[in-house]
Amino acid sequence: MAKRRSLLDLEHLSTDEMTGLLRLARRMQGHPRPLLRKNRIALLFYESSTRTRVSFEFAAKALGATTSLITATASSIEKGESLIDTGYTLRALGADLIVMRHPSSGAPHVLARHLDIPVVNAGDGLHEHPSQGLLDAYTILRHKKNLKGLKVAIVGDIFHSRVARSAVQVLTKFGAHLTLCGPPELCPEIASTLAKNVSVVRHLDQAIRGVDVVMMLRIQKERLAGLNLDIPAYVAAYQLTADKLRIAKRDAIVMHPGPMLRGLEIAGDVADSQQSVIREQVQNGVAVRMAILAWCLGAAK
Amino acid sequence: MAKRRSLLDLEHLSTDEMTGLLRLARRMQGHPRPLLRKNRIALLFYESSTRTRVSFEFAAKALGATTSLITATASSIEKGESLIDTGYTLRALGADLIVMRHPSSGAPHVLARHLDIPVVNAGDGLHEHPSQGLLDAYTILRHKKNLKGLKVAIVGDIFHSRVARSAVQVLTKFGAHLTLCGPPELCPEIASTLAKNVSVVRHLDQAIRGVDVVMMLRIQKERLAGLNLDIPAYVAAYQLTADKLRIAKRDAIVMHPGPMLRGLEIAGDVADSQQSVIREQVQNGVAVRMAILAWCLGAAK
Amino acid sequence: MAKRRSLLDLEHLSTDEMTGLLRLARRMQGHPRPLLRKNRIALLFYESSTRTRVSFEFAAKALGATTSLITATASSIEKGESLIDTGYTLRALGADLIVMRHPSSGAPHVLARHLDIPVVNAGDGLHEHPSQGLLDAYTILRHKKNLKGLKVAIVGDIFHSRVARSAVQVLTKFGAHLTLCGPPELCPEIASTLAKNVSVVRHLDQAIRGVDVVMMLRIQKERLAGLNLDIPAYVAAYQLTADKLRIAKRDAIVMHPGPMLRGLEIAGDVADSQQSVIREQVQNGVAVRMAILAWCLGAAK
Repeated sequence: MAKRRSLLDLEHLSTDEMTGLLRLARRMQGHPRPLLRKNRIALLFYESSTRTRVSFEFAAKALGATTSLITATASSIEKGESLIDTGYTLRALGADLIVMRHPSSGAPHVLARHLDIPVVNAGDGLHEHPSQGLLDAYTILRHKKNLKGLKVAIVGDIFHSRVARSAVQVLTKFGAHLTLCGPPELCPEIASTLAKNVSVVRHLDQAIRGVDVVMMLRIQKERLAGLNLDIPAYVAAYQLTADKLRIAKRDAIVMHPGPMLRGLEIAGDVADSQQSVIREQVQNGVAVRMAILAWCLGAAK
Repeated sequence: MAKRRSLLDLEHLSTDEMTGLLRLARRMQGHPRPLLRKNRIALLFYESSTRTRVSFEFAAKALGATTSLITATASSIEKGESLIDTGYTLRALGADLIVMRHPSSGAPHVLARHLDIPVVNAGDGLHEHPSQGLLDAYTILRHKKNLKGLKVAIVGDIFHSRVARSAVQVLTKFGAHLTLCGPPELCPEIASTLAKNVSVVRHLDQAIRGVDVVMMLRIQKERLAGLNLDIPAYVAAYQLTADKLRIAKRDAIVMHPGPMLRGLEIAGDVADSQQSVIREQVQNGVAVRMAILAWCLGAAK
Repeated sequence: MAKRRSLLDLEHLSTDEMTGLLRLARRMQGHPRPLLRKNRIALLFYESSTRTRVSFEFAAKALGATTSLITATASSIEKGESLIDTGYTLRALGADLIVMRHPSSGAPHVLARHLDIPVVNAGDGLHEHPSQGLLDAYTILRHKKNLKGLKVAIVGDIFHSRVARSAVQVLTKFGAHLTLCGPPELCPEIASTLAKNVSVVRHLDQAIRGVDVVMMLRIQKERLAGLNLDIPAYVAAYQLTADKLRIAKRDAIVMHPGPMLRGLEIAGDVADSQQSVIREQVQNGVAVRMAILAWCLGAAK
C-alpha cells in the first residue's frame, strides 16, 4: 500500500511535495476517476462552512468515496467528548480519512498525532488553511508562468486570516515576493516575519504598485469584536476599486478566498472584472482537493 | 446538448410545457433511470423543510445525481455573502443545477437571471412553489379524467400560501374552476384576481358544494404573528370534517400539501379517509421532481 | 419477498432472533455486499448524535442503500406535524425503512404500529437502544466464549441509560449475571427487577470483584438537572481506575458506549488500556447495524 499522510499545513511541506500536489490537481481537473471507491471520508466541521465543505464533499464523491458530514451542533461534541476520542470514534466507524475544520489553531495536528489515518486541515483557528493555499497557487499558475519572482499583494485582515498564512507559505517557498497591507490592528508589523521575502506596508497604493497578483481578504466581522474598526475609514483606505487596480500591472489578476463582502473590501465591478479569477479559484478548489484526498490516501501515482 | 432551463414559477409556463412535465413524471414513476449520473445538484435551503428537501434529494439520487445540501444555519450566508455570489460559488464548485427554497419572493428568479445553470424554485416567500403545483395537478389527473371544467376548492390560509398560488396557476391554465375560501385576513378578496375562473367565498359549505377536489391548507402559525386569529372560531368555520365533506361530490378527493395540523384545518378521520389522496401527493412528488430535474437539465426526451 | 420487521427493543426479541442477528453481523464484518442497492433509508434523528447516526449511515451505504438524514432542527417537526404523519410522509417519499432516535420512550413503537415499513429504534428516551445492546453482546462474544454464566458489572447512571436497559435485556437472556452499581439517585433499587439475574449494589469494589466485563456509563450531565449530584464524590466512589480494575478478573474487558468523559466516570489510562474494547465496540457497531438493516428489510439469508 502506498504511503498515507496527513495534510496539516503548508509550512512543513516541501516544494517537491507541493509541486506533486499541484501536478496531480491538474490531472484531476475534469477527469475524475473512482480512485477512492472503497474509502469513507468523514467531514468534521466544528465551524460553519459552505464552500470548503461542499468543495471537499464534491471532491470526495467525484473520486467515488462515501462521505459523512458531522457538524458541531448535532454531535457528541456537545456531550463533552474530547476531540481525540471523536477522532478515534470516526476511525472505528470506518473513516479512512478525516477532513476537519476547527476554531482552535493546531487542533488537526493534535488529532493527526493520535490517529493512524490521515487528517486534512480544512482551516484551524488563525493558523492555516492549506487546501486554500494550494488552490491559490494552482490558480495563479494558470495565469502566470512561474511563481518565482512574482509580486503578490495580500490586502486586508491578515491577522485573523488563516488563508493569508497558508498563501504566504506556499508562495514564498516558490520564490514569490509578498507585500502584506492593512491597518496595524489587522496587519501587525510582525507579519513580515512569517517567511522571508515578506514585507508589510500601510498604504494600498504602495502595496499593489506593479504587482502581478492582488489577493483581497474578507473583513471578518465575526472576529472584530473589541477592535473598534472604523469601517468607512477602512473602505476609503483599503477597498480595491477599479481605479486602484490600475496601479497594479496591466495583466494583474485579482483573487479573493470568499465569501466576499462587495462594497466593503472589494468593489463589485472589480470582483466581476476580466482580471478577477475569484470564481476560478472556487472551481480549481475541487480539483486541488481531489488531489489532496487521493494523495493523503496514497491512491495517486 | 439539449436545452437547459430553470423552473421558477408556473405563471410563466405554458400548458404545453406543463403537459410535457406531467407526462415525463408518469414515465419516471417507478422507473428511475440514471439520466443524471454525471450531474451535481445543490440543495440550497434557506428555510427549514422535510418533505420538499427529501423529495428533491431522493429524486436526484434516483436519477443517479450527486447531491449536496446547504442550509442557512451552517453556511457562508451568515458571513454576509450575497445570494448571487453564493450561486456563483455553487456553480464554480461544479453544481449543474440549484434547487432553492428562500423566504423572499423572487429570490430564485434573481439567482436564475445571473447564473448560466438551471435554478429550481422549491418555494419562495409568499410567491410560488411550482413543483408542488405540478404534483397537485399530477395527483388530480390520476383520479379525474381531465382538469378542464373541474371544480376545485382551496380552503384556508390562501394569503400566506405559495402552494395556493402555484395550484391556482396550473389548475386554471388547464381550465379548472377554482373557489378560494377563508376569512378575509387569510383569503383577501383580491385573491380572485390571481387568474380567471377564480372566485372567493367566505363560507365553507358554499366553497365545497359539488366540487371534485377539496384542497386544505395548513394554518401557518409561524406566519400569523399580529393577525390575532381566533383559532377555535377558525376550526368551527373552516375545518374539513366528514360531515362537511359530504357536501362535495361523492367522489371528491381531499388534498393537503402537508404538514397537516390534524384537528385544526382538517379532521383526522378525513385525512385518513378513502377520499384522501394526501399521502399519494407526497409519493407523486418524487416522480414529478425527477421529471423537473431531468427536464431542467435537458436530459429527458 | 422475505419477511420485513422492525427492531424496536431487545425485551421482545427471542434468543434465536438475537443469535441470528449476531451471526449475520459476523458475516457482514468486513464483507459488505450491496444487498440494499434498491432501498432508501431515512435517518430520523430527533436528538443529536454522532456515533449512532454515522454508524447507521455508513452501514446503510456499505450495503448500497440511499440515505437521507432528517434532524429535528431543520424539519417539519417544528411546524407541528405529528410523528405519525412524519412517518407516513417518509414512507410516501419512498423510504423503505426508518431509523429513528427520539427523546420520548416508546416513540418508535408508535411509529411502527402505524407504518407498513420497518422502524429501527436508534434510542428512545430512557427506554432502549437495541442496536447498542446487540453490539455490546457481539463485542463480548469476540473476547469471551459464551455469555452464559458470565459476570458483568454495569456502573454509573443506570437510571438515565437506555444503553443499560438494552444491555440488561440481551445479556440476561443469554444467561449472564448482571450487577448494576451506582448511587441510589442514578441506580435505584428497583433496577434489579429489570430482568432475572440482576442485582444492585452500591460499592464499586463489590460490583466488579471477579467480573468478566465492566461496562461504564457516561454521566449524562444534560439529564442531571435537579439531581444535585456531587461530582467529586461520584468520581471518588465510582470512577473506574487502573487500581479498581485489578479487582475484576485478570482478563476482564472494559466497555463504554461513548461518548466518554475521561477523568469523570473512567480514568484515561483505563480507557486506553489493553483491557479496553471501547473502540472495538464502535467498530463492531457498523457490522451489527448492517445486519440489523438487512434483517429488517428481509434481505439477509
